[in-house]
Amino acid sequence: MTARSTRSGISADKNTDVPAASLSRRTLLAGAVGVIGATLLDNASALHAQAKGLMPSPRALDDPGKVQGHIPTELGERSPFEHPRRRVNRAAPSGESESPLQDLYGTITPADLHFERHHGGVPVIDPAQYTLLIHGMVDRPLKFTLADLKRFPAVSRVCFIECSGNGYRGFQTTTMKREATPSWIDGLLSTSEWTGVPLTTLFREVGVKPDAKWLLAEGSDAAHMTRSIPVEKALDDAMIAYAQNGEAIRPEQGYPARLLLPGWEGNSQVKWIKRIELAKDPFMTREETSKYTDPLANGTARMFSFVMDAKSLIIFPAYPNTVSRGWCIITGLAWSGRGKITRVEISTDGGHSWQTAELQAPVLSKCTTRFRYPWKYNGGEALLMSRAVDETGYVQPTRAELVAARGAGTFYHMNSIRGWKVERGGKVFFHVEA
Amino acid sequence: MTARSTRSGISADKNTDVPAASLSRRTLLAGAVGVIGATLLDNASALHAQAKGLMPSPRALDDPGKVQGHIPTELGERSPFEHPRRRVNRAAPSGESESPLQDLYGTITPADLHFERHHGGVPVIDPAQYTLLIHGMVDRPLKFTLADLKRFPAVSRVCFIECSGNGYRGFQTTTMKREATPSWIDGLLSTSEWTGVPLTTLFREVGVKPDAKWLLAEGSDAAHMTRSIPVEKALDDAMIAYAQNGEAIRPEQGYPARLLLPGWEGNSQVKWIKRIELAKDPFMTREETSKYTDPLANGTARMFSFVMDAKSLIIFPAYPNTVSRGWCIITGLAWSGRGKITRVEISTDGGHSWQTAELQAPVLSKCTTRFRYPWKYNGGEALLMSRAVDETGYVQPTRAELVAARGAGTFYHMNSIRGWKVERGGKVFFHVEA
Repeated sequence: MTARSTRSGISADKNTDVPAASLSRRTLLAGAVGVIGATLLDNASALHAQAKGLMPSPRALDDPGKVQGHIPTELGERSPFEHPRRRVNRAAPSGESESPLQDLYGTITPADLHFERHHGGVPVIDPAQYTLLIHGMVDRPLKFTLADLKRFPAVSRVCFIECSGNGYRGFQTTTMKREATPSWIDGLLSTSEWTGVPLTTLFREVGVKPDAKWLLAEGSDAAHMTRSIPVEKALDDAMIAYAQNGEAIRPEQGYPARLLLPGWEGNSQVKWIKRIELAKDPFMTREETSKYTDPLANGTARMFSFVMDAKSLIIFPAYPNTVSRGWCIITGLAWSGRGKITRVEISTDGGHSWQTAELQAPVLSKCTTRFRYPWKYNGGEALLMSRAVDETGYVQPTRAELVAARGAGTFYHMNSIRGWKVERGGKVFFHVEA
Repeated sequence: MTARSTRSGISADKNTDVPAASLSRRTLLAGAVGVIGATLLDNASALHAQAKGLMPSPRALDDPGKVQGHIPTELGERSPFEHPRRRVNRAAPSGESESPLQDLYGTITPADLHFERHHGGVPVIDPAQYTLLIHGMVDRPLKFTLADLKRFPAVSRVCFIECSGNGYRGFQTTTMKREATPSWIDGLLSTSEWTGVPLTTLFREVGVKPDAKWLLAEGSDAAHMTRSIPVEKALDDAMIAYAQNGEAIRPEQGYPARLLLPGWEGNSQVKWIKRIELAKDPFMTREETSKYTDPLANGTARMFSFVMDAKSLIIFPAYPNTVSRGWCIITGLAWSGRGKITRVEISTDGGHSWQTAELQAPVLSKCTTRFRYPWKYNGGEALLMSRAVDETGYVQPTRAELVAARGAGTFYHMNSIRGWKVERGGKVFFHVEA
């Protein structure tokens, strides 16, 4: 039996004439196996091999099946061999913790690993006492209980939330370092299936006046986190979310309810939301004067820079991985606050040449998209980069382009291309560029 | 300012001529608010109202903001006010626990609330010792470590897993009862984002022989759970999954790796998979002779009935809810092992008339789809039913149709239409039909 006819046996179309492209893919995969050391048994039957004592560690194969396992439980727990943890940054003036991107798969972030960023800690809120007040330039000011909110027609949406300051460690020369994990660089990014009531529904209830162009969103936390949001966004796709990945929203993400503004910077999606006030003009809160305004290189500043522009990050290989010679699947996430990711390009030579990565379907708007690109590592030096393009045609900028537009001191919206330096022999470090 | 011009203020298109359909929707929502009791303040400013002591419980509004909340943590926890739990059925001969469908939102099932069903308990498996052997009618028998599996190009997919016995309590006359929650009826159903390696990739590695038409999948558990699966399914969309909702797969779902067969009965998606053997014919294991074969009304039986046919379940309102007069959003899940759900119809009169429910986008193939339908409850009797249609044109059958085809004693694949009886006054019970 030849390799060609054997392959036809596992082709869905039963075509015995295997095209070259398939064979080349087979080669790729064979290469990967070579690297990872799958054991080719020289016996036809591996059970037979086991009986003859050819397999390592029969205990590993046999033990779990020799004892009755544990019975069902009300709540599951992780395997004792798995310990994913958020990276808690205790040095921050107020709280933050990062999702362990390098330990995650697909796009969904488990709720207990969703990144945190709060200015006054996480409040404990009794859902029976919770209310959301909508007032100001409305016909009928209303207070909604949580039960009220849940009675309205709900919507669900999978989307990312990213802190506007995500990525500053990899952008600012004062914080850049080679020993930086994906989580340390860009871990203020998480993705969930959110469920709640569209803000348009609540606006219809209160009767928002035609000349109300801004809303103030205020949180119940000790910081009274407060942002001005254009009514236009509320009418587009804003939601008062009360559920996350199928369950009640977690305390760190705004329990019992938060503002969800898909694609916009995290701080604007006010958690523990207790009040929305409609007005003609923005409220110019502390978060719009002291914070979240971007000083530009030319001495002016840009305000209300809500949208998180297209960005991508290679998550594997990255520091502290070591790449082996042979095939390696480069993988990571790409996302855009302006819509769908349409293309992710990979460079292994520091941006001189680019190839298109595969995107995991379905690609959702304003959601992280997993990309994958097979790369054959030859053991030498390499500089890995990813570049995201979204459906508006926006292309993720280089660091130089971002510095030219905003200055090196900018602290928010640092979506420039990141690089991972592969040293001769395969050790990977964050690529520091100044 | 009239209601019509006010509404134009919150219309995205700024059209002052509000069509009747929108007004009628406004009426619906106003009705809902009437029912749920949102507080209409007679002051223009609710803050003003609060100052005048018109609002209940200022403590509820003010307290969380008066104290610093808790700082970031490595792992999040649920709110102390939320206690979702699986329903553990200790009466089963082997283990089972049901997802609390009535406490969940959207479609994703939190990993610690994913239903359980196992025949020998949950084994503890050291991922460093784990191997998957593929042998039998192959060119190159191979053993893959977990690291091997993770080095191949991965795929992610959101899909449901349903136990083939799900729903028996609501189908069999011996177990039916009025006091039945959605979880009790159909809680052996969960949905996750799964990530792993396509089985086709591994088959290409081992070189499956053309005349191998079946595979045996064997688990590492004490029951050595073993099923025969057509190679055709493996070539279609089967996966060896090692991640679930972004993290390593949980022990109860097969840690460190399981077979994933989208849309097929849960037992066939062998957990803790340790061995795949390729052969010409099915292996006729215990699970194909003693179990998982459906005796039919005519005295014959159907074997290898893997696919879970289209089904739906209203989750709210359901026992033990009480419906209030006015608008109520009927919601639930629909799913099909044959592809996408294309339509869900709702009846409030026991199947005499049907209306189309709204489906939450994106509708994914072989995945649960959330449906919603606004219903105005008049305080009298009602019989609520849902009926799913999938992209093959298959229509969820009535119980009578299912009994006619398979007999009243069938124990698997009980996908008939379920009903919820609303009594005068609004109390809801499971609809028992014999």
